[in-house]
Amino acid sequence: MLDFKVLSTEGLARRGRLTLNHGVVETPIFMPVGTYGTVKGVLPQSLHDMGAQIILGNTFHLWLRPGLEVIEAFKGLHGFEGWQKPILTDSGGFQVWSLGGASGSGRKISEEGVRFASPVNGDKLLLTPEVSMQVQTALDSDIVMQFDECTPYETGGVLTTEAEARQSMELSLRWAGRCMAEFNRLGNRNALFGIVQGGMFEHLREESLNQLVALDLPGYAIGGVSVGEPKAQMLAIMAHTPHRLPAHKPRYLMGVGTPEDLVEGVACGVDMFDCVMPTRNARNGHLFTRFGDLRIRNARYKTDVRPIDETCGCHACTTAISRAYLHHLDRCGEMLGPMLASIHNLHYYLNLMREIREAIEQGCFEAWRASFKADRARGV
Amino acid sequence: MLDFKVLSTEGLARRGRLTLNHGVVETPIFMPVGTYGTVKGVLPQSLHDMGAQIILGNTFHLWLRPGLEVIEAFKGLHGFEGWQKPILTDSGGFQVWSLGGASGSGRKISEEGVRFASPVNGDKLLLTPEVSMQVQTALDSDIVMQFDECTPYETGGVLTTEAEARQSMELSLRWAGRCMAEFNRLGNRNALFGIVQGGMFEHLREESLNQLVALDLPGYAIGGVSVGEPKAQMLAIMAHTPHRLPAHKPRYLMGVGTPEDLVEGVACGVDMFDCVMPTRNARNGHLFTRFGDLRIRNARYKTDVRPIDETCGCHACTTAISRAYLHHLDRCGEMLGPMLASIHNLHYYLNLMREIREAIEQGCFEAWRASFKADRARGV
Repeated sequence: MLDFKVLSTEGLARRGRLTLNHGVVETPIFMPVGTYGTVKGVLPQSLHDMGAQIILGNTFHLWLRPGLEVIEAFKGLHGFEGWQKPILTDSGGFQVWSLGGASGSGRKISEEGVRFASPVNGDKLLLTPEVSMQVQTALDSDIVMQFDECTPYETGGVLTTEAEARQSMELSLRWAGRCMAEFNRLGNRNALFGIVQGGMFEHLREESLNQLVALDLPGYAIGGVSVGEPKAQMLAIMAHTPHRLPAHKPRYLMGVGTPEDLVEGVACGVDMFDCVMPTRNARNGHLFTRFGDLRIRNARYKTDVRPIDETCGCHACTTAISRAYLHHLDRCGEMLGPMLASIHNLHYYLNLMREIREAIEQGCFEAWRASFKADRARGV
Repeated sequence: MLDFKVLSTEGLARRGRLTLNHGVVETPIFMPVGTYGTVKGVLPQSLHDMGAQIILGNTFHLWLRPGLEVIEAFKGLHGFEGWQKPILTDSGGFQVWSLGGASGSGRKISEEGVRFASPVNGDKLLLTPEVSMQVQTALDSDIVMQFDECTPYETGGVLTTEAEARQSMELSLRWAGRCMAEFNRLGNRNALFGIVQGGMFEHLREESLNQLVALDLPGYAIGGVSVGEPKAQMLAIMAHTPHRLPAHKPRYLMGVGTPEDLVEGVACGVDMFDCVMPTRNARNGHLFTRFGDLRIRNARYKTDVRPIDETCGCHACTTAISRAYLHHLDRCGEMLGPMLASIHNLHYYLNLMREIREAIEQGCFEAWRASFKADRARGV
């Protein structure tokens, strides 16, 4: 099931409530990414404590490891990873696309689907819209994403042409139809989202959007962004597409982004975001804060007794964990460094969305946004 | 300060209470090892939650990184690592000894101390009894260990001779005297422990013990075990030394060991243990349980929906974390695997000691010990 209510709006920004089979999600929301059934370096308990409402899983990865036999022994991903709140799974499309490398030689795309060699054991595999639905049905994710082809921004340094983007977009549309048919055939009771493609061509995105909307799916995503395009192109898509999607359905911008990108996305009418940035950057010592970003490896933090951000309510910042200690952990390669940094960064992202929700509710999102920008420019 | 009371005994086994500057420690106790100011892979909060009462820090490592300048900015190790309960630091002796490798070429031992090249940056360093006391005073650890020479069991395949063991033991005794003098000169208000050496020679251990007891230190450790000797030799030292130490002072067996070793140690009159085994083994997928040990990498766990041990009260076993999930995390190299395994193993060790304390209190330690052996032999 999926129920979505827009509770209030300010400009294009929306404050909503999404009800799924495993619970309620207050939007706008950021969804931590748990590729292999784990948000890297974070205890499930910590995710609960920081107020995560929904997390992602990656269909492609979980299909290969642990495989469906294992997932089925747990009656789905929730039981397997011990997370009883909502889960969204991607379709595997982006991952097989990523296998291609710059030349695209790692996989072969046809009308049927994508043939590729398993990066785990070399097995020849075929991922199709039907297989993606079958895997996501076994995972029992609350939100199932259609299998799509992620149109590249460039291939081997050559920009994708309009003809190529159209061909790719139309393939994704045909796959959306097949996904819907298979999803229904399987009797899946969760919610299937369509994905708008079209590369950097607005009229193609509009065509994709219109045809997907005609399928009357319960939610829609914007794909093919954050794939190496210049920031201006991403902002152009954000400005173009979200508000054209049906107002009474949730809108999900895939794989985005920095704190600034999220705020911009909300201002453009996006309800849902996911990104590996908070956890991946945490493992590289890159910490997000209200007052700008902080590279914990910098020698200036060696004797800095202050918390990462004294205004932050995360587990690290409220338990006397200092910049100097995190600098030391990073220098010694200690696991606790990425663990604490991941908690902090995810808390920062989740709290950012919490502040945005409150601002929209109170009708002061634009004022909040101005103070967000000023704070971020202040410096830590 | 140090206050120690033996609350009850059964045979040589003792149930005691140790009061230190940062709190009370119920003995017998296992102390998790936090080499670089972090128990590897475990949040300080998790250590609290599992009831850790005292943790270790390594003087040698912390002297090199982050260095005293940083520690002093936090007025000691407690503030730096955010742990307000007691801390014991070793003296650095074992670590410089470990630098030697099989040939001993990595460091040079003289009457003055040990010269070696920093494994971090190659700096030529000199660690002496006085420096060790100075560093441990800066760390402000509740229990300070004397600087000693750890007598090797063998060097390059050749067993340590009695003459060599005597020479080494006598050097450690002279260093104990210098440690005591420097500890007092520094006005350190914590507790200094002496370390009994003597290799595998009981009369040398007795000589070491008698001379250390004459110094009237507040506690004593047994060193030079768990250094590559056969298990029978370790058991012989356990049977020989602990009960000869002063009955009204705490007894600490350094670097030991397996669950069976701990139970044997308590039966021989030991009050305190430390070992990297629970955390190191956790990172290698080796889990300790009441019913024997479990290698999570084994393919038999691939679809095993059971917790590690259904009788275990640890965070992993009580939050529906399954063997199959841990097997999967291990296979994918996900950090969460070692994180959960470390929590489980440390909880197992701490709970083992809790059971031992209760058994001694109730005068049923011998019965408990028989059931411990039967349970461990049952198999998981």
